[in-house]
Amino acid sequence: MTKVMNVAMIGGGFMGKAHAMAYASMPMFFWPAPAIPNRKVVVDVTDAMAQTARDRYGFEEASSDWRAVVARPDIDVIDICTPNNVHAEIAIAAAEAGKHIICEKPLARTVEEARSMAAAVKKAGVIHMVAFNYRRTPAVALAKKYIEEGRIGRILNFRGTYLQDWSADPDGPLSWRFQKKIAGSGTVGDIATHVVDLAHYLVGPIETVNAITTTYNKTRPLQQSGVDKLGASEKASGDVERGEVDVDDEVISMLRFENGAIGSLEATRNAYGRNNFITLEIHGTKGSIHFNYERRDELQVMFADDPADSRGFRTVYTGPAHPYGDGLWPIPGLGIGYSETKIVECFDFFTAIKTGRLPSPNFDDGLLTELVADALLRSGETGAWERVGR
Amino acid sequence: MTKVMNVAMIGGGFMGKAHAMAYASMPMFFWPAPAIPNRKVVVDVTDAMAQTARDRYGFEEASSDWRAVVARPDIDVIDICTPNNVHAEIAIAAAEAGKHIICEKPLARTVEEARSMAAAVKKAGVIHMVAFNYRRTPAVALAKKYIEEGRIGRILNFRGTYLQDWSADPDGPLSWRFQKKIAGSGTVGDIATHVVDLAHYLVGPIETVNAITTTYNKTRPLQQSGVDKLGASEKASGDVERGEVDVDDEVISMLRFENGAIGSLEATRNAYGRNNFITLEIHGTKGSIHFNYERRDELQVMFADDPADSRGFRTVYTGPAHPYGDGLWPIPGLGIGYSETKIVECFDFFTAIKTGRLPSPNFDDGLLTELVADALLRSGETGAWERVGR
Amino acid sequence: MTKVMNVAMIGGGFMGKAHAMAYASMPMFFWPAPAIPNRKVVVDVTDAMAQTARDRYGFEEASSDWRAVVARPDIDVIDICTPNNVHAEIAIAAAEAGKHIICEKPLARTVEEARSMAAAVKKAGVIHMVAFNYRRTPAVALAKKYIEEGRIGRILNFRGTYLQDWSADPDGPLSWRFQKKIAGSGTVGDIATHVVDLAHYLVGPIETVNAITTTYNKTRPLQQSGVDKLGASEKASGDVERGEVDVDDEVISMLRFENGAIGSLEATRNAYGRNNFITLEIHGTKGSIHFNYERRDELQVMFADDPADSRGFRTVYTGPAHPYGDGLWPIPGLGIGYSETKIVECFDFFTAIKTGRLPSPNFDDGLLTELVADALLRSGETGAWERVGR
Amino acid sequence: MTKVMNVAMIGGGFMGKAHAMAYASMPMFFWPAPAIPNRKVVVDVTDAMAQTARDRYGFEEASSDWRAVVARPDIDVIDICTPNNVHAEIAIAAAEAGKHIICEKPLARTVEEARSMAAAVKKAGVIHMVAFNYRRTPAVALAKKYIEEGRIGRILNFRGTYLQDWSADPDGPLSWRFQKKIAGSGTVGDIATHVVDLAHYLVGPIETVNAITTTYNKTRPLQQSGVDKLGASEKASGDVERGEVDVDDEVISMLRFENGAIGSLEATRNAYGRNNFITLEIHGTKGSIHFNYERRDELQVMFADDPADSRGFRTVYTGPAHPYGDGLWPIPGLGIGYSETKIVECFDFFTAIKTGRLPSPNFDDGLLTELVADALLRSGETGAWERVGR
Repeated sequence: MTKVMNVAMIGGGFMGKAHAMAYASMPMFFWPAPAIPNRKVVVDVTDAMAQTARDRYGFEEASSDWRAVVARPDIDVIDICTPNNVHAEIAIAAAEAGKHIICEKPLARTVEEARSMAAAVKKAGVIHMVAFNYRRTPAVALAKKYIEEGRIGRILNFRGTYLQDWSADPDGPLSWRFQKKIAGSGTVGDIATHVVDLAHYLVGPIETVNAITTTYNKTRPLQQSGVDKLGASEKASGDVERGEVDVDDEVISMLRFENGAIGSLEATRNAYGRNNFITLEIHGTKGSIHFNYERRDELQVMFADDPADSRGFRTVYTGPAHPYGDGLWPIPGLGIGYSETKIVECFDFFTAIKTGRLPSPNFDDGLLTELVADALLRSGETGAWERVGR
Repeated sequence: MTKVMNVAMIGGGFMGKAHAMAYASMPMFFWPAPAIPNRKVVVDVTDAMAQTARDRYGFEEASSDWRAVVARPDIDVIDICTPNNVHAEIAIAAAEAGKHIICEKPLARTVEEARSMAAAVKKAGVIHMVAFNYRRTPAVALAKKYIEEGRIGRILNFRGTYLQDWSADPDGPLSWRFQKKIAGSGTVGDIATHVVDLAHYLVGPIETVNAITTTYNKTRPLQQSGVDKLGASEKASGDVERGEVDVDDEVISMLRFENGAIGSLEATRNAYGRNNFITLEIHGTKGSIHFNYERRDELQVMFADDPADSRGFRTVYTGPAHPYGDGLWPIPGLGIGYSETKIVECFDFFTAIKTGRLPSPNFDDGLLTELVADALLRSGETGAWERVGR
Repeated sequence: MTKVMNVAMIGGGFMGKAHAMAYASMPMFFWPAPAIPNRKVVVDVTDAMAQTARDRYGFEEASSDWRAVVARPDIDVIDICTPNNVHAEIAIAAAEAGKHIICEKPLARTVEEARSMAAAVKKAGVIHMVAFNYRRTPAVALAKKYIEEGRIGRILNFRGTYLQDWSADPDGPLSWRFQKKIAGSGTVGDIATHVVDLAHYLVGPIETVNAITTTYNKTRPLQQSGVDKLGASEKASGDVERGEVDVDDEVISMLRFENGAIGSLEATRNAYGRNNFITLEIHGTKGSIHFNYERRDELQVMFADDPADSRGFRTVYTGPAHPYGDGLWPIPGLGIGYSETKIVECFDFFTAIKTGRLPSPNFDDGLLTELVADALLRSGETGAWERVGR
Repeated sequence: MTKVMNVAMIGGGFMGKAHAMAYASMPMFFWPAPAIPNRKVVVDVTDAMAQTARDRYGFEEASSDWRAVVARPDIDVIDICTPNNVHAEIAIAAAEAGKHIICEKPLARTVEEARSMAAAVKKAGVIHMVAFNYRRTPAVALAKKYIEEGRIGRILNFRGTYLQDWSADPDGPLSWRFQKKIAGSGTVGDIATHVVDLAHYLVGPIETVNAITTTYNKTRPLQQSGVDKLGASEKASGDVERGEVDVDDEVISMLRFENGAIGSLEATRNAYGRNNFITLEIHGTKGSIHFNYERRDELQVMFADDPADSRGFRTVYTGPAHPYGDGLWPIPGLGIGYSETKIVECFDFFTAIKTGRLPSPNFDDGLLTELVADALLRSGETGAWERVGR
């Protein structure tokens, strides 16, 4: 019998939606499932918000008191979908209560927070995971497979970008994502960490970085509602008071990996025309890989030992012959969406709980990513190469 | 209070998975939801299969007796996810029992069946829908919006393709999809009807067709298991007995629409390298539209009245500013997958039930599509223009 | 010593430019060259036009009397770059004068003209070629190579399109291309013949066709100048008198090849947003090929026997490892333009003269293409399958 | 009357071919032409090589003594197509002899050489140009036009790459391009300078750089022939002696522009699968531009003020409505190749001579690019931000 596990989800915003969908759907896709996640209780800021989240996301109960929920003995899993400023507090409490934890990215606002969290889960012996879901895109997992099989040889160069445009409009609202005390950092924590996570996954640990960070829009209209709307959909009209943006809008960095590879990274939320433009370009001694999340069903791979007259990037649509293919759709091209990446993430998390083997990225990986984020921010200040302080 | 509606789903294969996911997820995306679908009972061929489907897809009950289920007074919705040969019988029984019905495509094996089904739901006054989900891709709905707003002018030409390759291997198993008595037809019913449905949606009724139909592989190995695996994943080895394929592998057709537009259609499951390659190319007197489902987050549109120096197809990534955008993801490019198309379909179905306004495509639309399928098959025989027998 | 051959070019418009460039450049690219083309004399409608063409295109002499030029004993090659209505007369005279002939496409206005031309060159024993230059695109020649080597197996299906938009504007001028007495036909002769030529080259002879032909714009403003400007660049203003368009704007056709393959063809000059959109999609029993001239440096090829986890279309950029690669540029991607296709054509023509082996497409191939064009026009009238009258 | 100008071309390799084609073709495309270039004399290392170049490229005379040629009073233009090590000597002599000069890129091996060259032409008052031909791609010129018209606003970010793979094979021959004493530098001078030139053209002067430079393959087989074959086409077999590579294989750099824009640059000849992959991604306050030379007929542009429901990158195929369109082909998509970029370059050069207005990039621009190259190499050594030493 597949075990039912009770999930308490803290946070009922856009990420709550994605996670709730995954809890409901994961066993439908991956069967026999490692567990049946039971949407037990959802926590939001107010009781009213929590009750709406309960009804909407199909949870049994609602609460506005995460501490009480974390303490409940019937809860197996704590899922942290809040803004970054409470990740650490919740995770540490959950670990102390012996709960398995999945935490949205970035793991924390600071290295110190991340370090405490990693220590807490280690001490507690629970399973922990950071929700860098883009790793779970089948095409990215396929890239990993090719690399591990040596099919593109030794990696020489990694180029990663994450370009969005939802904050390009200087009159977009001052959401929590522009406030250091809540978010920790701007683009660096919000999206560059995804690229760092992918770099760690595919290439290995980053050793030193050399970055430019910049803030294009120094002030923004104060937000009228509490909802986290990305972008100008809630654009201010008239004479709205503006508040200070104290985080970065953009980061460019050169990278040196421990294994000798070099590379670069760019992340911005101000690149008009780019939506969720996560691209990877990886060159090895025997081939190359290219990926663009905006066309995420596909991986492009080039094998240098193909015959001279038929050499070129292959556009591989992922399906049953590729990672996670058994669980997803019966032929390639039916469609990998954001949902599918979250369903796969959910599967890997509960598989880890079932097997007792830590998933990746776990809090240690999340800490390492925070260390790189910290080095990026430091280098943005100093203008010099900064070492990742493992 | 959002109304809870009890769903009985008949059929627990790949389509059952997609529908179950949608029932669980729809209210998470579209809130307030038109209804809360309750996964009440799932029906499969045997009790064992039904119980597995129940556990996997999160239904409350399992049954192998669809007639008994259809008769239950507590059931509001019958969802038909079976092979084509029982669509009509189930739908008619469900209509007579006063249930709302969503039926997988194609509506039926024959025009006669489809006609009976359409008559039955009309008589019963229930809500009915055919699950041509590709209409629900936001980019396709955006194409519809542009056309209705007159932004590409009067449509001159529609070109639609649906190319797959899962049956290209002559040693792929003889699934029910290759057997006329179960499927009704081959590529025509299975996938060309999707293109016909899109043509009807975007352009209007097809009046006459002129087609080639062909069968490339006349026999296939008898299937060892009952499961509907698309393609060669279950490829036969050794001396397996072969059975006859009595349906079409490919159809090419020219089209004439009632409104004067012309066009063409091609569908095949034997085009190596194409996976779920649904493409639309639509030319109007003021612009053009291009869509490729394999890159379904995007719609390409060209407006002829753009300035001469900056005229060209725009690649529009669908998001909050586009159809269904409020319910789906907060920025474009996060990812539209097969799941999202089914969630939108589910939303439109329950909205129809709530409002009492028939959705599209309903059984009348499904019948019209069957009439075109019939004309395609007739023209494939006669080699002449055949009129769609409305 | 490479032989110098004297060329007389009849017609000094856009095609004259392309040919003159090729005469000057061919030996630079293909060395040792099969011959050194000497731009001896250019003929245009008036002396003044001919003298301008002489100066511009670097010819030694100018003339407005093509008959006198054809009769000159010092001329080795006659190059026909005129509108279609004088192709036959010039070619037949040139053949009778014993000249080698390259003639722009389509070969003639009618099958009868083409037949006379083919008979004349056969009788004269000269070398003859029709300038269907798109065959000379290295990527197309690479497709031919793959097919001949059996790498995509037996061809099942050929889909070709040629979409342009320069005549979409109903107020574009009534150039000779819209007048049957000069052009013979519209889109069929002007651009569909390119697709037919490519189909013959890559698949084999077309046996029967079944077509729609249509004329969207029945009248156009009379042209103020004699120059052949494609499109609305010379759009009429004010109350300009309009003349009748008596040729087709668009053709759609289904195809049956002698070898059993099926296919389709579409050509139009009214597809907004498509410029020189010649696409080929060819499916075989072992793979597929895709080509789009608008991205002509690339050929896409899919081999069905690639490993399941790395199967997909390869994007092959043509270069030294591919047809004509030795003569063109030292690495792929430097850039194949219209010029390069014409330089290759020129090379193949003079190679034929040098070796005495007829090039392809020669006048016999051009006649066959005319026969298909004739069948397309007939089928457009009858609405029935029409046999190519070999 | 259009003036005939005598050209002496020094160097008969691949670049000689491209230039000779342009001299012959330019007036055919741009008429009335600013001048008729007369291919007077070609110079190569030996008399035999020069005579072959004369016959192949259609020059009147051949010589192996460039000094004598430069001194000839009948020569108007000196064209330097040699390896980098003799650029300075020839250019200075040509300037002193009062000749107009077009010099292949990079201008020189070192800043000192470039400075002397710039001083010499300034003193002599002749017209001078550096052959960074990629600026002449119509799509790049269109990007410049959009930027100058303010259509993408103030530029925030410039990302440029130039990726090739012809030197990825460690057994490719040790051509002069891998030898510092001849080439000056490796990837930096050979191809990164193209990106620098494009950055200067589109954004403005680069102020500081911070770079990684690296050499992947430290030795290569000594070359058996003198010919400059890019890549492994002449791959060594057996026990061939190897020589040292003393230049860079790859450069990655961050950029800061004088106008406040930031950016990055990457160039390598070791990126398997990339051929002539020059890409530009430029983000401004009102829009974005993307360009990929491998698909050079197209420019992608996004205007932020497009309506929300139809916003996205437009794929603009360049043609008559765009820069250089009057001279090139009558509709977009016929094909811009390497030839066309060189023909445009030739047109701009002779236009400069005719008008007496210096073209861009001239030797001053070339010197500025050398200064950036020097800063890149210095930063590769120091690991710190280095100022461009204007």
